[in-house]
Amino acid sequence: MKYKVYLSGEIHTEWREKIISGCIEQGLDITFTSPVINHEASDAAGDLLGEETSSFWRDHKSAKVNAMRVKNAIKNADIAIIRFGEKYKQWNAAFDAGFCAALDIPYITLHDETLIHALKEVDGTAQAWATSPLQIVKILTYLSSE
Amino acid sequence: MKYKVYLSGEIHTEWREKIISGCIEQGLDITFTSPVINHEASDAAGDLLGEETSSFWRDHKSAKVNAMRVKNAIKNADIAIIRFGEKYKQWNAAFDAGFCAALDIPYITLHDETLIHALKEVDGTAQAWATSPLQIVKILTYLSSE
Amino acid sequence: MKYKVYLSGEIHTEWREKIISGCIEQGLDITFTSPVINHEASDAAGDLLGEETSSFWRDHKSAKVNAMRVKNAIKNADIAIIRFGEKYKQWNAAFDAGFCAALDIPYITLHDETLIHALKEVDGTAQAWATSPLQIVKILTYLSSE
Amino acid sequence: MKYKVYLSGEIHTEWREKIISGCIEQGLDITFTSPVINHEASDAAGDLLGEETSSFWRDHKSAKVNAMRVKNAIKNADIAIIRFGEKYKQWNAAFDAGFCAALDIPYITLHDETLIHALKEVDGTAQAWATSPLQIVKILTYLSSE
Amino acid sequence: MKYKVYLSGEIHTEWREKIISGCIEQGLDITFTSPVINHEASDAAGDLLGEETSSFWRDHKSAKVNAMRVKNAIKNADIAIIRFGEKYKQWNAAFDAGFCAALDIPYITLHDETLIHALKEVDGTAQAWATSPLQIVKILTYLSSE
Amino acid sequence: MKYKVYLSGEIHTEWREKIISGCIEQGLDITFTSPVINHEASDAAGDLLGEETSSFWRDHKSAKVNAMRVKNAIKNADIAIIRFGEKYKQWNAAFDAGFCAALDIPYITLHDETLIHALKEVDGTAQAWATSPLQIVKILTYLSSE
Amino acid sequence: MKYKVYLSGEIHTEWREKIISGCIEQGLDITFTSPVINHEASDAAGDLLGEETSSFWRDHKSAKVNAMRVKNAIKNADIAIIRFGEKYKQWNAAFDAGFCAALDIPYITLHDETLIHALKEVDGTAQAWATSPLQIVKILTYLSSE
Amino acid sequence: MKYKVYLSGEIHTEWREKIISGCIEQGLDITFTSPVINHEASDAAGDLLGEETSSFWRDHKSAKVNAMRVKNAIKNADIAIIRFGEKYKQWNAAFDAGFCAALDIPYITLHDETLIHALKEVDGTAQAWATSPLQIVKILTYLSSE
Repeated sequence: MKYKVYLSGEIHTEWREKIISGCIEQGLDITFTSPVINHEASDAAGDLLGEETSSFWRDHKSAKVNAMRVKNAIKNADIAIIRFGEKYKQWNAAFDAGFCAALDIPYITLHDETLIHALKEVDGTAQAWATSPLQIVKILTYLSSE
Repeated sequence: MKYKVYLSGEIHTEWREKIISGCIEQGLDITFTSPVINHEASDAAGDLLGEETSSFWRDHKSAKVNAMRVKNAIKNADIAIIRFGEKYKQWNAAFDAGFCAALDIPYITLHDETLIHALKEVDGTAQAWATSPLQIVKILTYLSSE
Repeated sequence: MKYKVYLSGEIHTEWREKIISGCIEQGLDITFTSPVINHEASDAAGDLLGEETSSFWRDHKSAKVNAMRVKNAIKNADIAIIRFGEKYKQWNAAFDAGFCAALDIPYITLHDETLIHALKEVDGTAQAWATSPLQIVKILTYLSSE
Repeated sequence: MKYKVYLSGEIHTEWREKIISGCIEQGLDITFTSPVINHEASDAAGDLLGEETSSFWRDHKSAKVNAMRVKNAIKNADIAIIRFGEKYKQWNAAFDAGFCAALDIPYITLHDETLIHALKEVDGTAQAWATSPLQIVKILTYLSSE
Repeated sequence: MKYKVYLSGEIHTEWREKIISGCIEQGLDITFTSPVINHEASDAAGDLLGEETSSFWRDHKSAKVNAMRVKNAIKNADIAIIRFGEKYKQWNAAFDAGFCAALDIPYITLHDETLIHALKEVDGTAQAWATSPLQIVKILTYLSSE
Repeated sequence: MKYKVYLSGEIHTEWREKIISGCIEQGLDITFTSPVINHEASDAAGDLLGEETSSFWRDHKSAKVNAMRVKNAIKNADIAIIRFGEKYKQWNAAFDAGFCAALDIPYITLHDETLIHALKEVDGTAQAWATSPLQIVKILTYLSSE
Repeated sequence: MKYKVYLSGEIHTEWREKIISGCIEQGLDITFTSPVINHEASDAAGDLLGEETSSFWRDHKSAKVNAMRVKNAIKNADIAIIRFGEKYKQWNAAFDAGFCAALDIPYITLHDETLIHALKEVDGTAQAWATSPLQIVKILTYLSSE
Repeated sequence: MKYKVYLSGEIHTEWREKIISGCIEQGLDITFTSPVINHEASDAAGDLLGEETSSFWRDHKSAKVNAMRVKNAIKNADIAIIRFGEKYKQWNAAFDAGFCAALDIPYITLHDETLIHALKEVDGTAQAWATSPLQIVKILTYLSSE
């Protein structure tokens, strides 16, 4: 079987590359999508439509531009991988998880043991919890088997 | 007009009480629902079905029990208020926001200016951002007017 | 039969009052909802959350606050009446019509003959076109008959 | 990422061509759809099924024929661009915006500053507001980046 | 259990009255809805909005007015009874059946043995086929039992 | 634009062939689907699963087998053409129309003037009414234009 | 909070009575629905519409009559309790679980430890697994707390 | 016509192979999907994410991993074949049937006469009941005919 997989969350480590290259090595028929992961470009997305003086509205404009990409990618996904790293609040990752849950799009969380309690509601509707990109590759390999 | 309003998020300050009592003072026809806001009872919800030795599964069981209440409350809500406080990760609040967004249930965020950038995706799909319970009461009063 | 009827559009003439009082005279079991029809209050809805210096963002904030009322009212409606008057662009009325169409909520347009060509797409998905509040009352009376 | 983009609204200026050619220049993988933009052919669409003596029913028939194309194009679109020009009422453009909103299809409005207040409800549910086709091309280029 | 039951189809015999009075006798907690069953009033429904010279458009206008009542009644129904009598084409009854089927609203057909072959597609998605109002009353009594 | 078109209804005249060959001549990019139009094979569809002694259940079994094809074809269609001929009750055609209406799949009816009054509810939710396959080809050609 | 709870599955032990009486003792605001739990009446439901000679069609007719009650009850439920006892195949209980899962209606399974492996897919989408009616009462009490 | 067919249920006999090879012989344009049918691999799916000491949670983890494949396959299917064999409880097969029913995905059951009474609710919403893979091939051949 083949899948479309959305990679949501943390943008400061190499987890996406590890999953993608791991799946390529396994020869899986998977199409990956992601948000724009260039942090500065993402924050500045709204500036393309004119600059803002208020930081709230600048963020607002950028977030709404980015949402067009994210919403389409999630709605077209068969499975989402949602990564929580060590830094930052990462509320957008939890937001994506809730969005998936409501649309009945299965998702796998990817995070360390230290975050178990804080992520219990997000994990509670997840289909699985993984601690490493390698585990994600193994699960996707298993799910893709003939 | 009358509304059913779900109060999501932070459970360690009095924001819910302030909104509810403020709306009562204004004589609004609003029904409020909330998650179980007793922290210990909420964490122990799953223990009612037998205790777990693994902390992951204990959290998992409790989260899934609590989700029955939360999901029903959100699905029945006309409007959600989603509160982010100063402490903790509060990923469940962001999760609820994503859930509302996917179901097209309008929500208002309630948080300080310091969280603007971190919450930009959550605010980006919100219908409004408030900084105090009093503002929420004003908005609900306005929305309820004949 | 009883109905919930949403009254969308023009806020500068007495058409809402005429329909409501006409239905009361007929003894119909109809619940009416409307947007906030105080023009100034409606434009200032967002100011309750803090004032804006940019006119775009002031309008934006107010529109999103008002949308919470309008969306809920439309989603709960069995029938919408959508009024186009002589003045202004009234794009919000056409927007409401499109919203109703996508949700399969039947609507009746209320406008003069002079607007026929300009409103052809809006009338094309309407269930009926009326030219006076009295006609609306007659239709609602007919639809409510035992 | 690739997108299907619906171009709704004004049919008397070259904005569609500018967006399409701009996206081709950028090498984007975007499929564009539009309503029939030949004004006379569009008004006469219903005549293919026999002529009408009443102008209302002639418009009605044509509008319903055209709606088959428009509805299908919108439902299949990932993003809609909704253009409001200087002339005419353009209620069909606002209608399309409402239709998109209800189906949760993200849309970008394209209009001058002079229309801000009149379009506040339409902009309020839009993901972005642009003032030139070039800005639209920039946004689509950004959203399409790997 | 209690139900909302829509009574669709034939308007020239007493089948509706028999079912309603039979259910009242059994003390069932059922709310019944119907289309307007006054044939002349139904055909003239659109005349309330102005008369038409073309018979097609007169019928069209009336059908669309009536559809507001029918659609709302069906969407609110738990169960529909769809009656096919001996006379007329009764395509509206079959249309209602298809409408119910797509919305997953269970329906029972009510017709004689002579119509079995002609109604096989309509019966194929029905939950039951009855030949008399008395059978309908029996089924509704059974379904309502504690 | 390209379309998937479902051809529903009458199976005893050549209307399907005329539409398909007309569209091929016009070079349209349309995929057509139909029910099984071999009358005897259609009636005997259920016999493949074992014969029945009761004519009701034989029809029932066949109708349910055929429904798998019809439902899938309608759900995948962008537009349906629904043909009512001169003979038979053709309740399945009206059923398909109701099914389309509930799923918001636009359909065009194809029938003679003599059936106008009997088909008023079916025509009332149709996007168009045609009287000949040639008109259908013209409409599809128009809708397909670049 | 108040709930509507559907009690699905086993009909040969007193588990329903224990849950209902337990909730009444706790003073909970819960409305319970159930299938018809008189085994013989349930099997004979279709006989009300005429007797069948084939056992397959007799079962078929009865199952479809019963489904009208079950479907309505499940669709109206906030939570379902799905009981698997020691005897019989109880495929209808697993069917109800799948139906709930697809509609995103949360359910709790009620069964002994001996059935864990056989029910793993059904438990996998459940919100909780209980082993006694008393545990169900405790969970419902918890979920109903103010 | 072409179809996507999901093969649900029993994994200990050759029924899948017989259907697939039969359809290939007939030259049908059908894409088949299945759950992972290696029993041991399926039970151990969750172990890829770390081993569990509790048998309940081991099963739970595996079931939720497998559900990602099954849910996607069912949602993408045009038709499901649901096989009940002689051994085991096979509640997952009945669960899949309920899932299909709620999503209005037509399914055919495949089982012996001995299971008729136990499967009456599952058969009651099925589009057909077959007793051999050969019958399934015949039905799919019929449904695929031009």
